[in-house]
Amino acid sequence: MSDALFASTPAPPYFAVIFTSRHTGSKADEYQATGQRMIELAGHVDGFLGLETTRGENGLGITVSYWRDEDSIQAWYANLEHKSAQHRGREQWYRDYRVRVARVERDYGYLSDRAAKKD
Amino acid sequence: MSDALFASTPAPPYFAVIFTSRHTGSKADEYQATGQRMIELAGHVDGFLGLETTRGENGLGITVSYWRDEDSIQAWYANLEHKSAQHRGREQWYRDYRVRVARVERDYGYLSDRAAKKD
Repeated sequence: MSDALFASTPAPPYFAVIFTSRHTGSKADEYQATGQRMIELAGHVDGFLGLETTRGENGLGITVSYWRDEDSIQAWYANLEHKSAQHRGREQWYRDYRVRVARVERDYGYLSDRAAKKD
Repeated sequence: MSDALFASTPAPPYFAVIFTSRHTGSKADEYQATGQRMIELAGHVDGFLGLETTRGENGLGITVSYWRDEDSIQAWYANLEHKSAQHRGREQWYRDYRVRVARVERDYGYLSDRAAKKD
């Protein structure tokens, strides 16, 4: 695992899953623990490239995970423990959510050394 | 303008610009005002479909803007006031940033009435 805020993605093309959500506020501790576990689990899926996640004071959370191809995304969504977490998410944690699967065509930017450092 | 947290995007395909950033902490008020102005300005660009933005306590900000096509993204990046803001962003506000342009292939989710309501 890395504690970097930014994902170190390869040259495009690759895929992004944009997950936008707003919480009910219910069972926050359980949500937090499950979120950490999902990040750990995703890291073991072949084709996982990295993840960027944040939640602001406005209650909106945005998590973008990056993937080599559609097959790796399918493998992640077929994972049984992930399926169970998705179910709990829909039932308990998310008032609203949206998932968008997108193909990254180009990227650019500037990262200082620390931001992209892997542990 | 809408104060909805979620963007009301049409059926795919459409485009997403994923902007991930970390602040220097410098000139926060000026940054805030410019950010608001940019959201207002983007709303006037033909092909703009909406925006989702949040910044967490970890300092990471993620803003995803949605666009009809590559041409509308190009028009937005060619806007002179936006160009000037981008320049100030690189010079003053962002320690790190990354821009990814992606084609949304599919989306799904659940939005309660309020989340997607336009004002």
